Amino acid sequence: MDELERIDAYWRAANYLSVGQIYLLDNPLLDEPLTPEHVKPRLLGHWGTTPGLNFCFAHLNRIIRERDQDMIYICGPGHGGPAVVAHAWLEGTYTERFPHVTRDTEGMRRLFRQFSFPGGVPSHAAAATPGSIHEGGELGYSLAHAYGAAFDNPGLVVACVIGDGEAETGPLAAGWHSNKFLNPGRDGVVLPILHLNGYKIANPTVLARIPEDELIKLLEGYGYRPHVVAGEDPARMHRLMAETLDVVFDEIADFTAGRAPHLPMIVLRTPKGWTGPREVDGLPVEGTWRSHQVPLTEVRSRPDHLELLWEWMWSYRPRELFHQDGRPVPEITRTVPVGGRRMSANPHANGGELLRPLVLPDFRDYAVEVKSPGSAFTEPTRVLGRLLRDVIAANPADFRLMGPDETASNRLQAVFEVTDRAWEAARLPTDDHLAPGGRVMEVLSEHLCQGWLEGYLLTGRHGLFSCYEAFIHIVDAMFNQHAKWLESAKQIGWRRPVASLNYLLSSHVWRQDHNGFSHQDPGFLDVVVNKKAEVVRVYLPPDTNTLLSVADHCLRSRDYVNVIVAGKQPVLDLMGMDEAIAHCTRGLGILEWASTDAGAEPDVVLACAGDVPTLETLAATALLREHLPELRVRVVNVVDLMRLQPRSEHPHGLDDTEFDALFTADRPVIFNFHGYPWLIHRLTYRRNGHDNLHVRGYKEEGTTTTPFDMAMLNDIDRYHLVMDVIDRVPGLATTAAHLRQQMADARLRARAHTREYGEDPAEIRDWTWPC
Amino acid sequence: MDELERIDAYWRAANYLSVGQIYLLDNPLLDEPLTPEHVKPRLLGHWGTTPGLNFCFAHLNRIIRERDQDMIYICGPGHGGPAVVAHAWLEGTYTERFPHVTRDTEGMRRLFRQFSFPGGVPSHAAAATPGSIHEGGELGYSLAHAYGAAFDNPGLVVACVIGDGEAETGPLAAGWHSNKFLNPGRDGVVLPILHLNGYKIANPTVLARIPEDELIKLLEGYGYRPHVVAGEDPARMHRLMAETLDVVFDEIADFTAGRAPHLPMIVLRTPKGWTGPREVDGLPVEGTWRSHQVPLTEVRSRPDHLELLWEWMWSYRPRELFHQDGRPVPEITRTVPVGGRRMSANPHANGGELLRPLVLPDFRDYAVEVKSPGSAFTEPTRVLGRLLRDVIAANPADFRLMGPDETASNRLQAVFEVTDRAWEAARLPTDDHLAPGGRVMEVLSEHLCQGWLEGYLLTGRHGLFSCYEAFIHIVDAMFNQHAKWLESAKQIGWRRPVASLNYLLSSHVWRQDHNGFSHQDPGFLDVVVNKKAEVVRVYLPPDTNTLLSVADHCLRSRDYVNVIVAGKQPVLDLMGMDEAIAHCTRGLGILEWASTDAGAEPDVVLACAGDVPTLETLAATALLREHLPELRVRVVNVVDLMRLQPRSEHPHGLDDTEFDALFTADRPVIFNFHGYPWLIHRLTYRRNGHDNLHVRGYKEEGTTTTPFDMAMLNDIDRYHLVMDVIDRVPGLATTAAHLRQQMADARLRARAHTREYGEDPAEIRDWTWPC
Repeated sequence: MDELERIDAYWRAANYLSVGQIYLLDNPLLDEPLTPEHVKPRLLGHWGTTPGLNFCFAHLNRIIRERDQDMIYICGPGHGGPAVVAHAWLEGTYTERFPHVTRDTEGMRRLFRQFSFPGGVPSHAAAATPGSIHEGGELGYSLAHAYGAAFDNPGLVVACVIGDGEAETGPLAAGWHSNKFLNPGRDGVVLPILHLNGYKIANPTVLARIPEDELIKLLEGYGYRPHVVAGEDPARMHRLMAETLDVVFDEIADFTAGRAPHLPMIVLRTPKGWTGPREVDGLPVEGTWRSHQVPLTEVRSRPDHLELLWEWMWSYRPRELFHQDGRPVPEITRTVPVGGRRMSANPHANGGELLRPLVLPDFRDYAVEVKSPGSAFTEPTRVLGRLLRDVIAANPADFRLMGPDETASNRLQAVFEVTDRAWEAARLPTDDHLAPGGRVMEVLSEHLCQGWLEGYLLTGRHGLFSCYEAFIHIVDAMFNQHAKWLESAKQIGWRRPVASLNYLLSSHVWRQDHNGFSHQDPGFLDVVVNKKAEVVRVYLPPDTNTLLSVADHCLRSRDYVNVIVAGKQPVLDLMGMDEAIAHCTRGLGILEWASTDAGAEPDVVLACAGDVPTLETLAATALLREHLPELRVRVVNVVDLMRLQPRSEHPHGLDDTEFDALFTADRPVIFNFHGYPWLIHRLTYRRNGHDNLHVRGYKEEGTTTTPFDMAMLNDIDRYHLVMDVIDRVPGLATTAAHLRQQMADARLRARAHTREYGEDPAEIRDWTWPC
Repeated sequence: MDELERIDAYWRAANYLSVGQIYLLDNPLLDEPLTPEHVKPRLLGHWGTTPGLNFCFAHLNRIIRERDQDMIYICGPGHGGPAVVAHAWLEGTYTERFPHVTRDTEGMRRLFRQFSFPGGVPSHAAAATPGSIHEGGELGYSLAHAYGAAFDNPGLVVACVIGDGEAETGPLAAGWHSNKFLNPGRDGVVLPILHLNGYKIANPTVLARIPEDELIKLLEGYGYRPHVVAGEDPARMHRLMAETLDVVFDEIADFTAGRAPHLPMIVLRTPKGWTGPREVDGLPVEGTWRSHQVPLTEVRSRPDHLELLWEWMWSYRPRELFHQDGRPVPEITRTVPVGGRRMSANPHANGGELLRPLVLPDFRDYAVEVKSPGSAFTEPTRVLGRLLRDVIAANPADFRLMGPDETASNRLQAVFEVTDRAWEAARLPTDDHLAPGGRVMEVLSEHLCQGWLEGYLLTGRHGLFSCYEAFIHIVDAMFNQHAKWLESAKQIGWRRPVASLNYLLSSHVWRQDHNGFSHQDPGFLDVVVNKKAEVVRVYLPPDTNTLLSVADHCLRSRDYVNVIVAGKQPVLDLMGMDEAIAHCTRGLGILEWASTDAGAEPDVVLACAGDVPTLETLAATALLREHLPELRVRVVNVVDLMRLQPRSEHPHGLDDTEFDALFTADRPVIFNFHGYPWLIHRLTYRRNGHDNLHVRGYKEEGTTTTPFDMAMLNDIDRYHLVMDVIDRVPGLATTAAHLRQQMADARLRARAHTREYGEDPAEIRDWTWPC
C-alpha cells in the first residue's frame, strides 16, 4: 500500500465507523447477516457532511506526521458527530478517554450504540468529543473559535472546516476578516477549509451556487489565497488533496516567516453524502439534499433498504480495515500521529491542560482612598483599567482584552500605556495606539469578540470582554452555548477546568445620556440566570474598590461565566478597600454607616444592587434621616446577585436564616435594582419576606435624557423611593403625607429643570453623602 | 446657480443644520454673536458620519426629481440623527409631522434644541424620524432591512448607506448575499452605498484599510458592481457623485429589465467629519477618529473653541442658504422632490399607510375533527402549513414566510403546493421547490430572516418567521430593537400601525431527540416578556385546532410581536374547533372533560402550558383518576401566557377574582410549563395563591435522548407530577405512599427501557386519553 492507499483505507474506515454509528445497535463488523434487530429503532444522525470531514482528517494526519505539525481540528458543520468520534476512536484517544469503548469489536459495538442514543453522545462535536473545542449545534462560530485558538499560539495550525450552510451565517461571514488581527510571528495560523457540499437541509447553499470566479474573488477579497479541491472520484481527489496540502503548508510556512501576506485556504467541493447510496427508491441521494440526515430511512421495515445498507457498509471493504477482533489494521494505525500530535488528543483542545494561572498584581494596590463613605467620586472602570494594564503587562502571552471598539470609551484606556490595539492591516499617522501585536482586540462585532475569546479560553488562556450592556444581547445565543459547554464539560472527567469567561458590562442602561432608548436594556442578566447555577455568576459592584475586588476574584476563577456590571461614569466611593473586600466576600451586607436601625429591627429595609440604584438609595436614605429622623432604616447592598437565591438553587445562595437576618421576614423591603425588577422576584419568591418585597428597576421607560431623568422615568429615583417608604411603612401614609407631597413636587421641579436646561440640577449632580 | 451648485447649497444647509443640532440651544441663524449661553451644556451628538450622509441625500434627491424615482433612504451609520432630521426639515416633512417645528427661525431653534436633549429626539434615526424604517442604535441590520423593504416593491429603490463600522458586524456581512434572493422583475432594488470614512469610534475600520483591489474583489465576490467615489474636494466630489449616480441608475434600469446580472453599488470614501474643524488644539480632527462625536468639546468654557464653532458654522455661508426668517432659499427647496417622492415622506417608510389587511381563508376550514378529546394524534404545524399555503396563494404580493431552511423540517411543506423557495442563483435538477419568485425565504441566517421580515413589515406587508426555538436567541437583540421600535412608534401619532412580527417556534426544547443539549433552550420567552406589555404576546397552543385559532389571530393583529410555540411532532387532539376558539379567546381555561372536581373546589389544580407539558399533565390526571378516584383534580390549560400577569401589568391579564376562580386561592397548583419554570413565578408572584404554586419546567437538564426521557430529566413527566400531587395535597403523603413508590418505580423502568432499546416504552409513545 502506498501513502495515498493508506489514506484511502483510513478514510474508508472512518466512513464505515460513521455509518455504523448512525445505523447499528449490534453486529458492528457485519460478522453475521444484517437483521432488523441489529439496526437502531430510531435513526438519528447526519450522514451528508461526514465523508468530507473524514476526508480532511485523513489527509491532515499525513501532514502532521510528515511535518511534525502541531494542529487541532475545528469541525464547523453542524452534524459531524460521527466523523469526529470515528476519528478519535481510530486514533486510540477515544479508548483512552472512555476506557469502556475499547478499540475492538465490543468497543466498536458500544461506539455505534451510544451515538445519538439515550445516555450516549450527541450527533455533533461537543465537550464530550476528544479533540474538540467547538460545539457543532448552533452554527456560525467555527472561524471565530479557530482564530481565538490561534492567537498567541505560534506554531499551531488550526484547521477549520466550514460548512457551506454555516457560511451563510453572519458571524461566520464576519469571521473571515479575523486575519486582519492575526500576527504571523506571534500567533499560530488558521487554515480555513470551506467545504462546499452543495446543500444545507433542503436548500442549496449560496457559496456553492455562485459562479466560481465570484467565489474566488470573495475569498481573495477576504484576504485569503484560495485553492480549489473539487471532484468525486476518490483516487483523483486523494491525489489532488495531498498535492494541495503540500502547497498550502509551504504557503503557511511562508506566511509565518513573513514572506507572504496572505493565508492560504482550501475550497473543498465534494458531493453531499459522498460514497453513500447513489439512489434510493428511484430518487437521487448522493450529491443531493436527501443525504443530509439518514439516506436509508426504512432499514428496519424494508428488506430492500436493509440490503442497501449492507452493500453500502461492505463498499468500504471492512475486512481490509479491521482485524477480526475489531482492531484497525496497521496500514491504518500507521497513518495516525502519535500522542499529543493526534488531533483528538492535542492538549490545545483540552485547554485546561495547558492553563497557567494569571500573574495578578495585588488589586489592593489600586484602591482609591475613601476618607468617609460617599464623599467623593471616582470612575470605577478607569481604575480597573490600571489593574488590567498591569495584568496585560504581567501576562504578555495569555491574556487578551476584547471589545467592540469601546476600550477607551469604557474608560479602560490605561491599558494603552503598555499595549496597543491589535491591527495587521494598513496604518496611518492619525491612528491611536494601533499596532501589530497589540493585546486589545477591537472589532465592531460582538460575535467576533465573543467567539475569539471562547476559542482563546478553551485553549487554555485568559481574557475579558468589555461591552455595552444593551448590545451584549447580540451574543445571547453564543453565551448560551458556551454556558452549556461548561455545564457539559464539568461532567467529563478528562476535561480540565478553563479560565472563566468574564464580561464587563459598562455603559449600562442608566447612563445612555446621548444614545437613548435603543441602548437601554439590562436583560442580559435574565438570560444568564437561566443557565445552570454551577456556571453562572453575576456581580454588581457599587463602587470602585468593590469593582477591583470583584474583578480580581473573577480573573482567578475557573469554568464560570462571570458577568460584572459596572458603570464608567463617576460614582461615589463607598468603601475603603478592606471593607470592600469584606463586602464582596459576603456578597451582600448592611451599610452600617448609612443605616439608622442601630442593630435593632428596622422599620424598613432599603436594598440596592448596581451603582446608580445604590446612589439613589443612599440619597433617599439621607432624605429620610433629614425628614423622618425617628425612622429606623436599614440599607443593604447586594454585590453578588446569586446570594439572593435559596441555597438549594445556587451554591452562593444564602440560607433562609441569613436572608431573614438581613432583610427581615416581615418588614417592608424596597429593593432598588439595576435591571428589570422582576428578576429580583424570580430570585426571591421562596423567601419568607417576599410578600413585603417591593422592587424598583428598569421598566422599559427610556429616551435620550439626563441621568436623573432616566431614574425618574423608571421610579428608581431618591424622591420616589422616599414615597415608596411612606406608602409601605405602616402609619407613615398619614403622618408623612406632607413629605410625600414634597417629594412629588421635587420630582416635578427636577423634571422641569432638566427640560429647561438640558442637565440635571446641580444639587443632584453633585450630591454626596451628607452625614 | 447650476444644478451642482444647488446641490452644494443643499449640502451646506444640511451640514449647517446638523452642526446646529449638536451645539446650539439658541441663536440658530447666528444673528447675534455666539455666547456660551447659546450652546448646550451637554454636547451629545455625532458629527463624524453626518456630512457624508448629507452628501448622499443631496445627490439622491436630484435622481428622484429627474427620474421621478420612488426611493427611500436607510441610514445605517449609528449616529446619523442630525443628518436625517435636517433633511426632513429641509424637505418640509418635519414641520408636517411635528407642526411646532416650523420651517423658520423659531422652528430651527426648536429643531436644534430638541436634538439629544431631554424630552427631545435621539441622536440616531428612530421611529420618530420621518422617512426612517431603521433604528440607528444597534448596528448591523441596514442591508437586511433594505432588502426586506425592496422585496415585492417593484419600482422602488432602497438607498442604503452602510457605515464602515457597521460593515464589520456579522449580520451586515451576511446581508450582502441577500441579492441571491431578490428578483429583478418582481422586487425593487437595493442600492448599497458603503461609506468608508475610515474610523469607527477610536479604531480604523477593516474595509477602509484593506487594499482597494481586495475591497473591489470582495464586493464583486458578493455579486455587486462597485463604483468608487473617493475624495475630499467638494466641487470635484459633487461632479463625481453626480456622474456616478447617473451611471448607477442606468445600471439599475438594466438590472430590473433583466439586461444585467449584477446590482451596482457605490463605495463612497470621504474624510470622517468632512468639512468640520481640520485641527483643534494642535491635533488633527477632520479625517480622524477625533471627529467621531463632538469635534469641539469645550465651547462653553473656552472662547477659542467658541470662536472655532462660529467659524465652522459660517463656513457653510448660512446667509446664502436661509432667508432672514429662517426659511430655506428657493435654490435649496427647488432641489427637493415633491410630496410622497420626498424620501422623508415616502409612504413606504411609514408602511402602515400602505398596509392592506391579509386576505385570510377561514381557519375553521382546516380544523381536524376531534371525536373525543385526546384520542388521536395530529402534527399541528403540518395542518398550519395548509392554512399558510392558502394565505400565500391569496396574498401573492404581500406575505412571505421566512426561516433558516426549516420550512419542510418544521412540517409546513404544504406551502410548496403553491409556491417555492426563493432563489436567484444557479439551480440544478436535484433541487426541491426552488425558483425565482418563491414566497418562502430560506437562508441559514436567523439574522437575515429577522432583518428581511422587519424591513418587509415596516414597509407595510405581512409575514411569519419559523425557527428552531433554541436558535431564535440568535436574534434576541434584533427582537429587542424591533420591540422598542414598536413601543416608540405607538407614541407617534403619524406612524400608522403595521402588521405584527409573528414567530413560530417549532422544533422546541422537548423534542430535540437527535440534536441534544445544544438545541434545548426555551429562554426566548424570558427575553420577550421583558419588553413592554403593549407590544408582546406569547401563545402556547396545546393542539392543532388551538394553533389554527392562534395563528389566525396573530396574522390579523397589528403592532405586536407574537410568539407562538407549537411542536411539529404529533400531539393529541384535545379540542374541536368551536371549543378551541372559545379556549383561545379566553386564553386559558379548565379542561372540564379531564377534570374531576365537578365544578366544586378541587383538591389540587394541575395547570399546564405547552404541548408536551399538557400531554404529561393529562397522563398524570389519568393516573390520578385510576389510582386516587376520590381526588378532585382540576386541569387548567394556558394558551395565552400573558393572562397570568396581573391586569395592571398586561392588558391581557386576568383580574384576581378570575384568577382565583380558576386556580383557587389556597389549593396546591402544580403548573407544568413549557419553558424555564421561574417565568411562571415571575408572572404570578402577586397572585393570592402564589405560595401554593409549584412549577415544573425545563431546568437545563438535557441531552440526546427520547422525548419521555427528556420529560423525566426535568421532572415534567406524568409520574413525577403524580408524585408532586401526593407531596402537596394534605394527607396524601401517608395514604398514597404506595402509589408514590409505584410512580418512582415506573420512572426507573421507563429510564431502563429507554437505555436498553433507544426508544420510549410503547405504552408511553402511544398513550391516549383513556376516559
